[in-house]
Parts: sequence; C-alpha cells; structure tokens
Amino acid sequence: MKASLWVANGQVVTTVGHSTSPQVGPALGEVLRYTDGHVLVDGDKILLVTDNYAQAKAMCDAQTEVVDATDRLVLPGYVDCHTHLSFAGWRDHELPLRLAGRSYLDILAAGGGIISTVQKTRAATPSALLATVLATLDTMLLHGTTTVEAKSGYGLNLETELKQLCVLREAGTRHPVEVVRTFMGAHALPPEYKNAREEYIAIILDQMLPQVAAEGLAEFCDCFCENKAFTIDECRSILLRAKALGLGAKVHADEITPLGGALLAAEVKAVSAEHLIHADREHLRAMAEAQVVAILLPATSFILQTAKRADVKSMLELGVAIAIATDYNPGTSPLPNMQLLQSFACFHYGLTPAQAFAASTINAAHAIGRAKDSGSLEVGKQADVIIQKAPTLDFVPYHLGVNLVESVIKRGKRVVNKGGCMYG
Amino acid sequence: MKASLWVANGQVVTTVGHSTSPQVGPALGEVLRYTDGHVLVDGDKILLVTDNYAQAKAMCDAQTEVVDATDRLVLPGYVDCHTHLSFAGWRDHELPLRLAGRSYLDILAAGGGIISTVQKTRAATPSALLATVLATLDTMLLHGTTTVEAKSGYGLNLETELKQLCVLREAGTRHPVEVVRTFMGAHALPPEYKNAREEYIAIILDQMLPQVAAEGLAEFCDCFCENKAFTIDECRSILLRAKALGLGAKVHADEITPLGGALLAAEVKAVSAEHLIHADREHLRAMAEAQVVAILLPATSFILQTAKRADVKSMLELGVAIAIATDYNPGTSPLPNMQLLQSFACFHYGLTPAQAFAASTINAAHAIGRAKDSGSLEVGKQADVIIQKAPTLDFVPYHLGVNLVESVIKRGKRVVNKGGCMYG
Repeated sequence: MKASLWVANGQVVTTVGHSTSPQVGPALGEVLRYTDGHVLVDGDKILLVTDNYAQAKAMCDAQTEVVDATDRLVLPGYVDCHTHLSFAGWRDHELPLRLAGRSYLDILAAGGGIISTVQKTRAATPSALLATVLATLDTMLLHGTTTVEAKSGYGLNLETELKQLCVLREAGTRHPVEVVRTFMGAHALPPEYKNAREEYIAIILDQMLPQVAAEGLAEFCDCFCENKAFTIDECRSILLRAKALGLGAKVHADEITPLGGALLAAEVKAVSAEHLIHADREHLRAMAEAQVVAILLPATSFILQTAKRADVKSMLELGVAIAIATDYNPGTSPLPNMQLLQSFACFHYGLTPAQAFAASTINAAHAIGRAKDSGSLEVGKQADVIIQKAPTLDFVPYHLGVNLVESVIKRGKRVVNKGGCMYG
Repeated sequence: MKASLWVANGQVVTTVGHSTSPQVGPALGEVLRYTDGHVLVDGDKILLVTDNYAQAKAMCDAQTEVVDATDRLVLPGYVDCHTHLSFAGWRDHELPLRLAGRSYLDILAAGGGIISTVQKTRAATPSALLATVLATLDTMLLHGTTTVEAKSGYGLNLETELKQLCVLREAGTRHPVEVVRTFMGAHALPPEYKNAREEYIAIILDQMLPQVAAEGLAEFCDCFCENKAFTIDECRSILLRAKALGLGAKVHADEITPLGGALLAAEVKAVSAEHLIHADREHLRAMAEAQVVAILLPATSFILQTAKRADVKSMLELGVAIAIATDYNPGTSPLPNMQLLQSFACFHYGLTPAQAFAASTINAAHAIGRAKDSGSLEVGKQADVIIQKAPTLDFVPYHLGVNLVESVIKRGKRVVNKGGCMYG
C-alpha cells in the first residue's frame, strides 16, 4: 500500500495503546518519542508511524505528498473537549468591572454576565452565529486544534438551543475542525422562568431533549450542577432522560461549591465531569470507579483568579483520567489556544508538560467519545497531525505566548501550512 | 505639508500630554479615544492625530500610502522595557523539574539555571547570538513591540558582556525594532569568582563599565540587588560608577527578598527599579519622590507562581509610575508577547486594561528614556503605530492567547502587514 502523505524526519511524540482506555495515574504522560520519525498517511488514515526511514520511503512514490518536519515536533492534533463556541456578545467590557472588584453576581444583576450573552445569542441570526463559529474554528485550527466539543446553552429556549446546535452542525460540515455537539439547555435558568423553574426543567425534559435526540443534533447532554444553577436532582432527571434518549452525559460539577456533581457524574455513568475545583476526594474515587473522565479547565481558574485549584494529586492517586480544555466562552475563558492552555495546566495546575500533552490529546478524545479515531498517532486512526516549531515537548507550555504550530493535517489533508513562531 | 502615510478610520487610543512625565496615581490609564480616528505620518514622524476626516484627507495626496483601519484599534507600538533577549540555551528541560518541586537552587546546583545559560552564551558565536536575537525581534514585532530594552548579563566576563552588547547594537541597526541596550555585568556572580567576589566587582568597575561607556555600548547599567546576587553596597558602587560614566541606572530590586533595592534606586536616582515584589511601602514612597519608574514583571510572577505580588495599590496611592515588561529570558519568562503580558498584568496583578496599556506604552517609554520619541501617538513623535483586530482596548488583555496585531508601522514604515486574529 502506498502513502498519500508522508510527514518526514520530525520528532514524533504520541501516546500509544490508549485508544480503548485513557491514561490514568502514573501512566498519564507516558509517550512514545521518535527523535527522527515518520508518519505515513493513506487517505484520511494513519498507515504507519516509524523511525525507520527506509521502511517509510518504501511506502511512498511520486504521488506521495511529502511534508518535511526536520527540527519540528510532530504531534496528534489537539482535542479541545469543552467549549461554548457558539455565541454572540463578547463581554470584554466586564473585565474592568471585575478587576475593580465588582462580583459576578453584581454584574449579572446589572444585566451583564451569561444573561447578556443569552440575549444577544437569541437575537443573532443563524448566519451571523455561523460566521462567528467558523472564524473561531479558523483560529483554533491555526493553533493546532483538530477536534472540538461545543455546547449549546446560550439559548435557554427551544428555538435558540436548536439554532445553536444547527449552526454547530453546519460549521462541522464546512470546516476542517471536527465539531462534537453537546446540548446544554441546563446552563442557566432563563430569566423568564425565574419563578417557574419546574416549568423550565419540564421544557428541557419534554421538548428540548426529545427534539435534539430525534434530529441527531447532539451526542451529549451537559448540565451546570451548581448553586444558582441546577440542583443534583434536577441534573439527575435531565441526564437520565438524555441517556434514555441515547445521549451521553456530561456534568459541570463542583466548580464553585462542593455540591456533589462529581458523585452524580459517577452515579449516572457520565462520560465526563468538568471543572471539579471543589470535588470531594471520595467523589473523585467514585468517578475513577465509574470511569468518568475529569475535564480540568485551568484557564478559567486563571481568569477568575480562583485560589483553590482542582485536586490533581488525588485524581492521579485515585486513577481518575484527566483531560484539559479551554472552556472557550465569552465570559470566563476567551482563550481558543490549546498551547497556552497547556501552559496554564502546567504553571497553574501543576501538570508536567507530558501530562498536559496527554490530557490535551488522548484523554481529551476519551472525554468526548473520540478516542478510537483521534488523540494519538497510531495505525488506523484518523490522520490528525500537527507540526510545531519546537525542539521538545517541554517547549510548548514553556514558551508561552507564541503560536508554535506551523502545519495542520486533518483527516489526511494539509489544512494549515504557514510559519508559526519565527525562532531560529 | 503632505502626509506620507495615513492610518485611516480606526479606533485610535493613546495617552496624551505625558511625554515629559509619566502617568501616575489616578491618571494611570487616562487615554484619548477617537472612535473614528486618523493618524497622519510625515516620513518617520507623526504629523497629526485627529477625528476630523476632512482635515485628514486634506493632508494627503496621490503619493500618500493609505492603511485602512476600519473596525481596528490603532495604538502606539508597545515598548518592552525589560528583557534579556541576547542568550543561548533555552531551559525548557527545567520546567518538568520545577513542576516536580525541584527548587531553583537545586537546579542551579545541578548545573542548570542561569549558569547554564551563561556557559552557552559564552560559547556561542556572535553570529549565532545575532541570529537568535533577530528571530526574537521578529516575533516581538509581529506581536506589536516596536521598541525593546535588552540587557547583557549572560556573559559575566568582559569578552562575553561586550559580545552581547555588540550583538544587540548590530541587531538594532538591522531590525526595525529599536533596541535600547543595558549593561548588566552584575546579573550573577560568575562561578569562577565564587570565592573572590571583590575581584569580580573590581572587574565590573574598572574594566567592563569603562569599556562599555567608552564604546557607547549601553545607555543604562542594571544590577541584580538580591541575596545570592549582589549586596546594596556592591550595587551602589556599580551604579554610581555607571552614572559617573554617563550611563543611567536601573535596579533589579526586592524580587525575592525585601533587601532594599527600591530605596537604593531612589537614592542613586535610577531611571527604574524592576520586579519590586517585596518592596517596602516607605521605599516605594522614596521611589515616587525620586521619580524612579517601577517596572512590574507579572509574567515572571505567573511562571514562578509567586504567591506574593508587587504592591500595585501602594504604588498607585504614592504616585509611583508603573510600567510593565515581559522580562523575556530563557529561565523565568520565555514570553515575547506584550499582549499576553497585559493579560497577566490584569488578571494576575489587578491592573485595568487601560492601566496595563499605559504601562506598556508611555510609562514603559519613560522607563528607558524614550518618552520624548515613543509611547504615544502625538504630533512630532516617532510614527510607531500598531493596528489590532480588536473592538475595544479591553479586548486586548481579555482575549488572551491570540495575536491580535495585524499591522505594525515603525518610524513611519509599514513593517508588518498580515492577518492576526481570524475573528469576524
């Protein structure tokens, strides 16, 4: 069999052997490194990963596209497994208010916060939303993200939740970045149901979820399990209904208070639980047993300057699989860049560069049900490959503030080919 | 008089009226904003800044180069007033060690840290150093920096200190970014003088400084006033000798311990004191009286995860002028990007976006004696202008992780013209 594309002579770094179960405990960050390696692609799939030049060359002919990766790092594309990328209404004007000490709840009361994004997202046309999503996907792709999870949840009514999901579906068909969709009607209680929360829950259960499932608009259902958002019981009913309809479950858990979302995630056998800053150690143990992936969002902690950090040490000890994601959204994480996210994971959360890498690739793929296809450079998987101008894996989180990605290959096609960092 | 270049229809934001004294106290961050503004350039100088389209147009003819800045932010170029950009030897491999809890002193004892950079810098050829510096200046320029201060201090012997400064001088003649040179022989005690520190001080005083001054290799002299580095008395003797030779004084002060570098800076009437994390409030008062600019380095604090932060509140109350800089170096701040630096200044140090902007422009120019020429968009100053794809000044530190700079004009010449952020 001949290769259609040959990424040649690069420093190849990837996890191996974790397509069916994520890296946990001391295994997190175990990688294969070929100093002078080759990735061969056939169509949209990886044909071979080797450090044997002769073997690589023998699989190529005059038709093979050759991408020289000399002095470059060759990695699997980043998987950003938790974002809210379909929205209208940036909230940059709230930054000076927050820095001046105004609380999130003050800003919310003054018409800001998530509710302002909801209003603007409701008012936005699908084509305007689509343009924003496509532009964001461009930025993400240029920074090395080849697969992204994206949630609804700025609609909070049937029409707008569906609009968001349809826009995300359309974006995924038009853009090289693969978009995995999550329904999140339970992101916040809409203001018009302030005194009728049971009614809103009923709408989620009886209208939104069935229609989302029937139209195949989402693979997952997420909910914000938190004081001021939704209770454990409300989230349980939503997630169980979602599962009955064939969707996977996700939980925004224990971000601000130790409400017990992590335990709920274990109970309903969610695919993932996210944030987890206040998660109880015993609840983390339950997550490990139920094989729920922890998605950590260290950029959000940085931006909110949250003193408490997720309990990475316990997660490693107990065998909870750790993934990291940007949490890209207009309020608490306007950061689309998985390289800088790894810097936050290292400097702010204490992961090593190799752990942050695994958490951004194979474990992130597990967190959105894509580990069979994505997250590592292994034979038979999708050829999602990025080439970075960096001498070592450590260099990526270390050299923060510069886009090191030069080339991106998605499903075997070279979709970014430009200079990244200018360093010699 | 006709304009050679017209930056048209942008949102112009600049400080005004602070070319002779920096912004201090409540004035920090006071800016002029023209929603629909114009910057007209004649040769290398700013001819006019206005929101009067007719007036702008009247100064242009067919020869005028027009740069459309519609929906863009038009700012003075960033001034990075504290860097160590001339070095060999990245230290990315130390990151996992530090994250695993190894102390800086442990790493130093194992041959790492600054001493490893010194060894590699001594061994590097001038042309290799120059290539690295030019590549770094490229990266800085692409991110909006038009003037940079750069220190020696990885030589710690006469030959290499001069080599570093000569390389920086050469880089400044070849590259659009203006390079302001600082001699910093007192950066660390070289290992070969471990038991003979007086001898090394004498070499600085009697050999290095006179030669640096005689050859015009530096405008400033800096020294690391700190336990394990140089004492107050040693720094005083070095800075006074430097001043007698016509150099301006700078002090790395009170970074790790409250040794009193801030007070020394006031005493010797230094242009600036940097770091200042542990500076005593009374010493800050002395700095304000002596008009010493405080250069804060919040990225370094982030990277070292320093719990204590510089006392910005006291600086504002006491009228200390605040500038911010990247501290770009291979150990504690491998960050060349003044946009992300502003994010750290806001989220990590509590400055508002407008304060971080002023601290990155006019106040930074004061910190390196360039405020008459740089740091703001005012008639008669150098035409150092950047165009960013951002709707507001707040957006710059808020939207972290993306290079928003699209165009850079240095001394009236357009030296960067490319897409930055892909957002619509």
